[in-house]
Amino acid sequence: MRASVATPQHRAFRKVNPTASTRLDRWALARIQESVASAPLRFALWDGFELVSTAGPPIATILFKNRRALSSWVWDSELHFGETYMRGAVEIHGDLLATLEAIYRAFGASQRRPWLRHESHNVQEAKDNVHRHYDLGNDFYRLWLDREMVYTCAYFPSSESSLEEAQVAKMDLVCRKLRLNAGERVVEAGCGWGSLALFMAKRYGVSVQAFNISSEQIAYARDRAKAEGLGHLVEFVDDDYRNMTGQCDAFVSVGMLEHVGLADFPALGRVINRSLAGSGRGLLHFIGRNQPGQLNPWIRKRIFPGAYPPALREVFERVLEPHNLSVLDVENLRLHYARTLEAWRRRFDDASREITAMFDEDFVRAWRLYLAGSQASFTTGFMQLFQVVFARGSSTTIPWTRAHR
Amino acid sequence: MRASVATPQHRAFRKVNPTASTRLDRWALARIQESVASAPLRFALWDGFELVSTAGPPIATILFKNRRALSSWVWDSELHFGETYMRGAVEIHGDLLATLEAIYRAFGASQRRPWLRHESHNVQEAKDNVHRHYDLGNDFYRLWLDREMVYTCAYFPSSESSLEEAQVAKMDLVCRKLRLNAGERVVEAGCGWGSLALFMAKRYGVSVQAFNISSEQIAYARDRAKAEGLGHLVEFVDDDYRNMTGQCDAFVSVGMLEHVGLADFPALGRVINRSLAGSGRGLLHFIGRNQPGQLNPWIRKRIFPGAYPPALREVFERVLEPHNLSVLDVENLRLHYARTLEAWRRRFDDASREITAMFDEDFVRAWRLYLAGSQASFTTGFMQLFQVVFARGSSTTIPWTRAHR
Repeated sequence: MRASVATPQHRAFRKVNPTASTRLDRWALARIQESVASAPLRFALWDGFELVSTAGPPIATILFKNRRALSSWVWDSELHFGETYMRGAVEIHGDLLATLEAIYRAFGASQRRPWLRHESHNVQEAKDNVHRHYDLGNDFYRLWLDREMVYTCAYFPSSESSLEEAQVAKMDLVCRKLRLNAGERVVEAGCGWGSLALFMAKRYGVSVQAFNISSEQIAYARDRAKAEGLGHLVEFVDDDYRNMTGQCDAFVSVGMLEHVGLADFPALGRVINRSLAGSGRGLLHFIGRNQPGQLNPWIRKRIFPGAYPPALREVFERVLEPHNLSVLDVENLRLHYARTLEAWRRRFDDASREITAMFDEDFVRAWRLYLAGSQASFTTGFMQLFQVVFARGSSTTIPWTRAHR
Repeated sequence: MRASVATPQHRAFRKVNPTASTRLDRWALARIQESVASAPLRFALWDGFELVSTAGPPIATILFKNRRALSSWVWDSELHFGETYMRGAVEIHGDLLATLEAIYRAFGASQRRPWLRHESHNVQEAKDNVHRHYDLGNDFYRLWLDREMVYTCAYFPSSESSLEEAQVAKMDLVCRKLRLNAGERVVEAGCGWGSLALFMAKRYGVSVQAFNISSEQIAYARDRAKAEGLGHLVEFVDDDYRNMTGQCDAFVSVGMLEHVGLADFPALGRVINRSLAGSGRGLLHFIGRNQPGQLNPWIRKRIFPGAYPPALREVFERVLEPHNLSVLDVENLRLHYARTLEAWRRRFDDASREITAMFDEDFVRAWRLYLAGSQASFTTGFMQLFQVVFARGSSTTIPWTRAHR
């Protein structure tokens, strides 16, 4: 990617000799290296200048191919790591996943950015944010997701489980945690391509009203419901979850909360409170954090606009507490998301020829980085995957033990 | 209990005719009845005047035996319900537990009392608070606790489990959640009469350093360790948990957090952070709430001075988050505490002759109310019992699934 060579800013740099690095360049590289000093990495400039961590033999080399890439990292490394990698201005020579894991470990807990405001997304903004990611085309996702098209963390009962098995096991785990009974009414907020809604109807005999604001996903889900003869049990609604009405015995949301944003948590709580029956159960499955903090800015910019993975207490305080909803069970499945991403990455790489034909090289590099970075964030404990089961505080039908599942 | 008849305040009331209730008395009774209008109860005054809920046939009668008791409820019913019941100035004719459950249900969520400050307990205050409750005498607790002297929520694997079995099952559940391995070092904060510490050493082969500031309990625990030949594995330390030093592979605290208080949560977090090994696990077992709120003031005054059962998010925010500790698992066992209290109450009643010989009637009534009220708070969902398992955010040895236990 050399399109930006002609920009005025880059021309200005050219004057000071683009081929040899300056003392300032080397100083900048040293600052970058210092910020992840404990990661065993080599940092290199375009002219061959290198800095190597004293933490051990380098597992990879991070190569800045021009001064502009280097200076952008000094300005905001969290954002421009992704930008420059995506554009090919920074290359990683060595294993991408291992490199990212080393960086996450070196960072430790993410810096807090309390000055970033938590914007509320109106229905149109939420739709735009979702469209950016989920409407990339069902053909694209079909190339590397499992057979059921489940684009959330799977659950691997054993180390031998395949991704296909693990996605089915995850759906069954969700149903068992919700203790679904035949004939009950389920509302699903954010239903993806409809796999969980169809699974619940088929295996547990419940009726499901499933909401999604991704038109491509809803169209696919409706076709599937028709093909499987489940149209009488599953209604796919092309609308924002906040517009839902009616009552339900179970409320489930898998992989949507990350897209809701803190400012709209109270609205989600109100929706749950007005729809959940007295003996109802709920399950929220979401990417979260140990401490409140912002998502990586590059991921927010390029991959998941508007996304915010919350700490548990932010969900409890803003969604559950105001309505006296009672936490019954929490499970952290971060290792399962690492393995899910490993499987997705393998399939993505296997399909890279087809994907490159659909998009450009920047897109492929961006997605490689996103998938590897996500995997690294779960293996290193930087990000969490929480399943939270709750009921009304006054419910008299909460389960006795976990053994009942 | 008529000792207070001679107080000036009561003499003043006498002037207006103690035998017949006035319009003001009846107005006060109506306000009290209204505050729990949906509870099917009869409220009666000393002269036979009655008010019956329209919610259904009354399950019990709450009888005010004098005007002083009535007016104290108008002033602060949460406190004086307990005070007047304890002194015999208010009688409950009917099932005590069912009455308290009806009241809890009618109250709904407890009113918040944000103006109450959260005082920090220095080591001496903490010791005094603990002494008030836990040093009532081992002979007293032996009369109605299980064989192992476990004074925390049990875990009933099935509806047939006895209290003795359920306390052993609880200790085993805690050990399995902590995934103890032989030879590991465990720190226990608040060890009661030492049953869990001894169990962990005996069944799981770990060494335990167990802290408690109740001298009576520590003396009992040390005798037991000696008698069972476990002195080489279990050290009972007569000191505040905040004075602990050294490292551990597992940190466990069962039924202590309620006595720590919000203001000292950060200190608990620091103790955990400085003592837990990199691959260590922790478990906090505590009475909690769905929403932040104060403990009933009578319980604080008479039963558990300084106690505060927290909402989960208060624990997460103040104990775990500052040190990037990661929540792995949460289980709500409130129904198990209801059953535990049911068993304690049965044994307490069976031993009432012995207990009355040890203390006075006020004490017995107070404890009957405390035990029944606690049971009612768990059956109605007013209070929760949480077990929280955590590890360091960077731990690479967190469990894969729950099935490994």
